[in-house]
Amino acid sequence: MTCEYCGIGGYGKLIAEKTYWKIFLAPSQRYLGTCVIAVKRHCSALSELDKVEWAEFSRIVREMELILDGIFKPTLFNWSCFKNAAYRVENPDPEVHWHLIPRYDREIEFEGIKFKDPNFGYIPQPFKLGIPEDISDGIVKKIKTGLDSMKIND
Amino acid sequence: MTCEYCGIGGYGKLIAEKTYWKIFLAPSQRYLGTCVIAVKRHCSALSELDKVEWAEFSRIVREMELILDGIFKPTLFNWSCFKNAAYRVENPDPEVHWHLIPRYDREIEFEGIKFKDPNFGYIPQPFKLGIPEDISDGIVKKIKTGLDSMKIND
Repeated sequence: MTCEYCGIGGYGKLIAEKTYWKIFLAPSQRYLGTCVIAVKRHCSALSELDKVEWAEFSRIVREMELILDGIFKPTLFNWSCFKNAAYRVENPDPEVHWHLIPRYDREIEFEGIKFKDPNFGYIPQPFKLGIPEDISDGIVKKIKTGLDSMKIND
Repeated sequence: MTCEYCGIGGYGKLIAEKTYWKIFLAPSQRYLGTCVIAVKRHCSALSELDKVEWAEFSRIVREMELILDGIFKPTLFNWSCFKNAAYRVENPDPEVHWHLIPRYDREIEFEGIKFKDPNFGYIPQPFKLGIPEDISDGIVKKIKTGLDSMKIND
């Protein structure tokens, strides 16, 4: 449950639980709106995912890009499934989880805090930027509301 | 057709063409066996992919991990869809393409050349390492043979 993009303390704050995946707000908000989408069963490689897990993941991709577009209007999204940090310890036990990292070509202000994307146009760097609890709780709530509204329209 | 991991000159050498995706051997082999899987139609975000494109992509993930395991025995695979380099120019025109980057916890020798993974356990860095034409042609052939044998077993 540790990851270079997610930071110490697991994948972050739980936003929603789907049938096969959990969606978290990542502890590091260096790139505002960064989320983690983790498969709920133990699974160490993408090749082990089955059809229904892929199908639900692809729906989550659509929903999350749409919702984050609505809240923060990022310029683009970076998606990755790396699992590198799991190999820094003996007896690695990697877990499939995706990083959803919104990227911005401009400074963005949210709840009075200014966020920059210091690496726009380049790979996201795994440096941790924490934000106040009330701000991250606010982001979780906004994304959750978006996901709930999509359930209604299913 | 330029990408930070793929290097100048497009996605690399074509290995195979599926119904919805093309598979290339990336120009940079800093991480031996690095490939690019690009969707065949114009598509600027993962949320625009449809069901059949996701389904074929998930089959390609399984096949490619299995084939590369057989050839190079990497320790793990990094997958990412970033599209960052497209935003370094005016009027960005991003194209959905995946990076498949095998990672190694050891030095590996292939056709007399020694490869190291200088960032094992950490994010892959986009520095270009070219290899001789005959070596890359040999890798293309090995992967192609693997993909063809799976078609027979479909």
